[in-house]
Amino acid sequence: MTYSSLTCDCLETGHWDRNRFEAARKGGLDCIHVTLGVWEDFRETVREITKWRRLIDDHADLVTLANTVEDVEKASQTNRTAIVFGLQNTAAFEDDIELVGVLHELGIRVAQLTYNIQNLVGSGCWEPEDRGLSTTYGRGVVREMNRVGMLIDLSHCGEATSQEAAELSERPVAVTHSNPREFVGEDVELPIRNKSTHLLRTVAEKGGVVGLSPYPRMAPDGNACTVERFCEMVEWTLDLLGPTAVGIGTDLNLGNENKMAWFRKGRFAREFAIKPRGGATKWPTWFSSPEHFPVIADGLRARGLSQDVIDGVMGGNWMRLFDESFKPMS
Amino acid sequence: MTYSSLTCDCLETGHWDRNRFEAARKGGLDCIHVTLGVWEDFRETVREITKWRRLIDDHADLVTLANTVEDVEKASQTNRTAIVFGLQNTAAFEDDIELVGVLHELGIRVAQLTYNIQNLVGSGCWEPEDRGLSTTYGRGVVREMNRVGMLIDLSHCGEATSQEAAELSERPVAVTHSNPREFVGEDVELPIRNKSTHLLRTVAEKGGVVGLSPYPRMAPDGNACTVERFCEMVEWTLDLLGPTAVGIGTDLNLGNENKMAWFRKGRFAREFAIKPRGGATKWPTWFSSPEHFPVIADGLRARGLSQDVIDGVMGGNWMRLFDESFKPMS
Repeated sequence: MTYSSLTCDCLETGHWDRNRFEAARKGGLDCIHVTLGVWEDFRETVREITKWRRLIDDHADLVTLANTVEDVEKASQTNRTAIVFGLQNTAAFEDDIELVGVLHELGIRVAQLTYNIQNLVGSGCWEPEDRGLSTTYGRGVVREMNRVGMLIDLSHCGEATSQEAAELSERPVAVTHSNPREFVGEDVELPIRNKSTHLLRTVAEKGGVVGLSPYPRMAPDGNACTVERFCEMVEWTLDLLGPTAVGIGTDLNLGNENKMAWFRKGRFAREFAIKPRGGATKWPTWFSSPEHFPVIADGLRARGLSQDVIDGVMGGNWMRLFDESFKPMS
Repeated sequence: MTYSSLTCDCLETGHWDRNRFEAARKGGLDCIHVTLGVWEDFRETVREITKWRRLIDDHADLVTLANTVEDVEKASQTNRTAIVFGLQNTAAFEDDIELVGVLHELGIRVAQLTYNIQNLVGSGCWEPEDRGLSTTYGRGVVREMNRVGMLIDLSHCGEATSQEAAELSERPVAVTHSNPREFVGEDVELPIRNKSTHLLRTVAEKGGVVGLSPYPRMAPDGNACTVERFCEMVEWTLDLLGPTAVGIGTDLNLGNENKMAWFRKGRFAREFAIKPRGGATKWPTWFSSPEHFPVIADGLRARGLSQDVIDGVMGGNWMRLFDESFKPMS
């Protein structure tokens, strides 16, 4: 495999159209992990999958679907961006363990166990209490995702659920889009979205990768986060976890305004207990489009990091993890 | 391909368990086309698919799933029966043309356009009037099935719908389990389930195959149908359509008693307009189990048919059609 210099943003959401795909090409992105569902049930998720496939077909000169790392390599060779299908929740599995494999067959390669609140599998980071994975179904989903080759994402999961899943999983797990809580501190809008040093160490020890994000609600200095400060966090995390466990997952949510209520409240509540500031996210000027992705590499070079380490952070580490994660367990 | 001597029963339904799979092995069946749904919507059909997969996994020494004719060959070489997944209705597609391809990806290789009554696609054989395929969705489903590689089955469709679909389809179509109405006549319980000579000729001219059935409600002489009379019908149909267009689709429905109401009325009616006799089907003693399948070949030999023609009828013709039908259109 020659994937070490492929670039990847391991979490983007929002509205997708030709302009955005062109921006991804301008940003030299070989791969983007996108979100097809949060509260969507199985039937609704299949609808999102088929809509995404049409969207990709309609812009086949710019993007292609990736089921494997080989697909990302081919995309790169043909100057296209490979799209990896992901879910930010296990709602699509409903109460049916068989749907994990079915959704893998239909292209889903990453799934977050919980989104903010408690579900059938475990707890989310917005819950006041997290009692961990549910014993039967939650642990069963972890094992089934391992078996079929679906990467476990812990970004929005609660601490206990994350820790338990990371320890139980027989394959490496991911935190696609969170920051280290120890580095960022509590003085941001959503400190709960960042991860404890204990959890991050467990993820790295298992061979997983942590994707760091300039999302203002959880980035160091919040809205005032500079590229220098962001890259300082990258280096801090590299020092903590080693050069193969750190990547980028920007959480870039362009055009997501209309779906904010759906992400936050789904169908499960009229009002949400924690009310984050409304309106569109104010992205920093240095990162407000996929075309700015190389700015991060420039920032890391300015800190004097070696090209090998930078390549790993910019995508090589995700590619290694994807290669180890997306195929059924033998 | 060396599929000309593989055997196939191109329609069986009912209850499936180890005993029945063992009977299929005793009957030397290399392939059975089974029914996973009639009124089941998409979600329910996926459940049936996953249940069938587990069933196959649980009896992997006797059966295996076939997505291609190569899979049937492999099954035969390992003394197993290959299961081809089919639907007897397009209810599973709901109103979503994308679900045709999704269900093909999940293993469905054959689908009947309508089951007895009118649906979104066209009309069934029990309707007093058949206005043909619906212009937008019905014709669209035919084209989409052609495109993705799902064989069109016309067995329970109405005459106009069948004729229109057979003519519109760019690939060969099948009648997996019906008899020639001209041969059988009107003096059976369900003459409407048998097919006009005009339609059968169209199917054969398009390269399709017609599966003949000893099902007492539509077989010649009904409950009194002998193997000799059945084989007379096979020979009559061979004379009409040629040696490559005739096969067997017994409609063997062992253990289907509990599902009869579901097949007949689904959720769409409390009472059905046409009331066939109730209770379990009284299969003739010469064909009441998959293990009796070779009795048909013996009967055809007794009529002096050549081994080549018998091989075609017993399965070779289905294999040729499957080989031409199950892969996406290039």
